[in-house]
Amino acid sequence: MTKLRRTPERIYLPRGFSFSAVVAGIKASGRPDLALIASSASASAAALFTRNLVVAAPLEVDRASLASSAGHVRAVVVNSGNANCATGRAGRQSCQRVCRHAAQLLGVPAEEVFPSSTGIIGVPFPAEKIVAKLPDLMAARASTKPAALAFAQAIMTTDTRPKIAAQRFRVGAKEVTIFGVAKGAGMIHPQLATMLVYLLTDAAATPRQLQQLLHDACDPTLNSMSIDGDTSTNDTVLLLANGQSGVRVSEARVRHRFSQALGAVCQSLAEQIVSDGEGVQHVIRLFVEQTSTREEALQVAKTIAHSALVKTAWAGADPNWGRILAAVGRCGLPIDPSRVRIFIGNQMVCRDGVAHPFNERRAHESLAQPECDIRVQLRRGKSSVRFLTTDLTAEYVHINADYST
Amino acid sequence: MTKLRRTPERIYLPRGFSFSAVVAGIKASGRPDLALIASSASASAAALFTRNLVVAAPLEVDRASLASSAGHVRAVVVNSGNANCATGRAGRQSCQRVCRHAAQLLGVPAEEVFPSSTGIIGVPFPAEKIVAKLPDLMAARASTKPAALAFAQAIMTTDTRPKIAAQRFRVGAKEVTIFGVAKGAGMIHPQLATMLVYLLTDAAATPRQLQQLLHDACDPTLNSMSIDGDTSTNDTVLLLANGQSGVRVSEARVRHRFSQALGAVCQSLAEQIVSDGEGVQHVIRLFVEQTSTREEALQVAKTIAHSALVKTAWAGADPNWGRILAAVGRCGLPIDPSRVRIFIGNQMVCRDGVAHPFNERRAHESLAQPECDIRVQLRRGKSSVRFLTTDLTAEYVHINADYST
Repeated sequence: MTKLRRTPERIYLPRGFSFSAVVAGIKASGRPDLALIASSASASAAALFTRNLVVAAPLEVDRASLASSAGHVRAVVVNSGNANCATGRAGRQSCQRVCRHAAQLLGVPAEEVFPSSTGIIGVPFPAEKIVAKLPDLMAARASTKPAALAFAQAIMTTDTRPKIAAQRFRVGAKEVTIFGVAKGAGMIHPQLATMLVYLLTDAAATPRQLQQLLHDACDPTLNSMSIDGDTSTNDTVLLLANGQSGVRVSEARVRHRFSQALGAVCQSLAEQIVSDGEGVQHVIRLFVEQTSTREEALQVAKTIAHSALVKTAWAGADPNWGRILAAVGRCGLPIDPSRVRIFIGNQMVCRDGVAHPFNERRAHESLAQPECDIRVQLRRGKSSVRFLTTDLTAEYVHINADYST
Repeated sequence: MTKLRRTPERIYLPRGFSFSAVVAGIKASGRPDLALIASSASASAAALFTRNLVVAAPLEVDRASLASSAGHVRAVVVNSGNANCATGRAGRQSCQRVCRHAAQLLGVPAEEVFPSSTGIIGVPFPAEKIVAKLPDLMAARASTKPAALAFAQAIMTTDTRPKIAAQRFRVGAKEVTIFGVAKGAGMIHPQLATMLVYLLTDAAATPRQLQQLLHDACDPTLNSMSIDGDTSTNDTVLLLANGQSGVRVSEARVRHRFSQALGAVCQSLAEQIVSDGEGVQHVIRLFVEQTSTREEALQVAKTIAHSALVKTAWAGADPNWGRILAAVGRCGLPIDPSRVRIFIGNQMVCRDGVAHPFNERRAHESLAQPECDIRVQLRRGKSSVRFLTTDLTAEYVHINADYST
C-alpha cells in the first residue's frame, strides 16, 4: 500500500543535547531498539502522561523521579519492543535498575534519568539485555543530525518512518531552537496514545513555566487527534529545556515566540503521527464548529473520529454524510439535528439536517485525496475545534490482527 | 468468507398474525424490499427506539401514532433500502402518506399502522413506489411460515440470512406463542442500532404490561451487544400482543413463563444478529464480573467491545490480553489494575494485573472457534454482565467502504 508522503522537515538541533541508538535484541527484527538523549547540563522538565489507569512501569518511575528531582532530567533512555506494562513490581524494579545503571555511567543522579518503553504489553521486561548495552549506548552519543535520526528510528514500532520537527528563532544575537521527535502508529487517541514525544530546547525555563507551555502546545495538536480511539498505557510527552542558548522564556518578547514555535513543532509531529497511522490512506482534518464550548466540539469530533462506520466510509472515499450525522446524533450532547450542516471539501452536503444538493463526484474526489477537510457546524455557539483523524482500512485490521503484535 | 452457521430455530407462529413481502424497487438488487405484518385484531403494543438524537421519520411517526392510539397497532409496514432519515418534513409526510394508504386498504385507523425503514440515510423517501405496491402487499398476506420467512428476508439489508425465533408454552388447555423476527448486520450497539425487531404474541396484555416485559427482556439481550459501536437512527423493537390465545399475562402463573419465553426469543435474536454482523468471524461472549453495579460492568464491556485494537486481535485469534487490560484502564471507572483478572476460554491469562502463565496455543485455539468466552473480573463487587460482541475484520471494512452503501 502506498503510504502518504510528507515533505521532510528542516532539522535544527538545540545546543547541548546528544543522541544515540543501539541494538539490544528486544525487537525480533534485530533493528535498533534502545535509544538515548543526553543533555550536557541538567534540564528543566515538564511531562504529560496517558490518562489510562493501566500505566506502564516507566511512567510510574518517571512520575516519582520528576518529583524527587524537582523537575530535572539529564538523560532519556527509551526502548522499543517491550512496553514494560502489566509487569507488576518486577517491571518497576527492572526499570529502576536500568535507570541506576545509566545514571552511574553518566555520573548523574538516578532520578534524573527518564525512562520510556513502547511495545507489547504483559511480557517480562528484558532489563539484562538493556543493561548490557548501556555502555555502548553511552559511547555512541553525538550531537549530530544522523545521531538524532538514529534515535528517531530506534523508538519506532509499527511506524513506517521516523518523525521529527524543528523550529528556530533569533532573540537579538542569540538563537533558540526547539527540536521534537516522536513515535506513533496505532492506539492514538486524545490523552496521548502509544505516542512517545520528546521536545528539546536550549531555551532556559523553570519546570513550572514549561508545564504551562507544554499544556498549551499539546491541547490543540497532540491532544486533538485520533487514529483508532485506543489510549495506550505508555503515552508520554516530555519537554526538556537546558538553557544552553542563554535565552530565558520568562522574557515577555521570548515567551510568545517560543510558544508559537513549540506549537508548530507539536502540530507537525501530530500530522506526521496521524498520516503514518496504521493502515491510514486518508487523513481527515475535521473542523467541528459553532458549538457552545470547545469541550462540546471535542466531544462531537471524538464521536465522529471514533465511528467505525464513518471511518470505513472515508476508506472508500464515500461521501456518506448520513453516517457523520448519525454519529453527531449519538455523541451525548443535546444537539438539534435540524440545525446541523456538514461540508465535505468545500461543498455543503447536509443543510439543517437534510440532504443539500452537491456534486457527488467532486465530493468523492475530495475524499480520495491524501488529505481532506470535513466541516460540521452545530449552530449552538461560537466555539470550535480542529481535529486530526484518519480512515479505517483493511490494512489496519491486517496489521493489528497479526498474531501477536 | 465462511459465515458462522447457526442451527435453524424451530418456528411457531402466534394466532391472528399474517405476513407478506413484495418487490417495490427500492433496493437496487431487485429483491423484496417492502413487507407487512397484520393482526386480525387490534394488538396492544410496546416499543423501544434508538437513543440517537438523529431520528428517522418513521420513528417520529411511530411515537405519535402510539400516543394517539393509546398503544394499539393493527399492521406493521417495513421497507428496506431507504432509512427515511435526514429527510426532513418531506420524509415525515411521505411516511404518513404510506400509513394512510395502508390503513385505508386494511380498513383500520392510520395511527394503528406502524411504519419502519432501514437503509441509506439522507436520500429522499420513495413513497410513490411503496404506495403503488401496497395493494399487492395486502393481497399477498398469509398466516404461514413461508410468508413469515418472506417478511424476514424482505427486511434484510447487509444481513446474510433471515433472523427468526419462537417459543411456545401451554397454560392449561391453551397455548401461548411468541414469535420474533429481526434484522441487524452493522451499526449494532447498545441502545439498539440498525436493528429492527418485531416480537409477536397471541397472549393478551395491556400496553403498560408489555412495556415492562419488553424492557426486562431486552436489557440483558438486545441491549447487551455490540458489533461496531455505532448506534443507528432507525432502531426499533416492537412487541405486539393480540390476545388470540385467550391467555392473559396478568395471571401470575403466566407472567413468569411469558417473561422467560420472551427473554429466550430476544436472546436467540441477539445471538443471530451478532453472529451475522458485517464481516464477523468470531462471536465473543464477554463476561464482565465482580463490579459494584451492573452499569459499571456494562461500561467496561462496552469499552472492550468498542476497542479497535482488541477487536482486531480477536480477528487474528490473538490472545493479546494486554489490549483488553488497556481498554479496562481507559473505561472511565476508578478501577484498580492490580486486581484485574482476565480469562480466555477456560484459562486465566492475567492475574492481578500481570501475566499469568497459560498455554498460548490453547488460548489461540479457543479464540479461533466461532464462539469464545472471555471473562474479565474487577474484584470490586458482586455485579456482572454478559455481553455479546464480535471481532473486527478486513471484511467489515470492505463491506462498509464500498462506495455508497
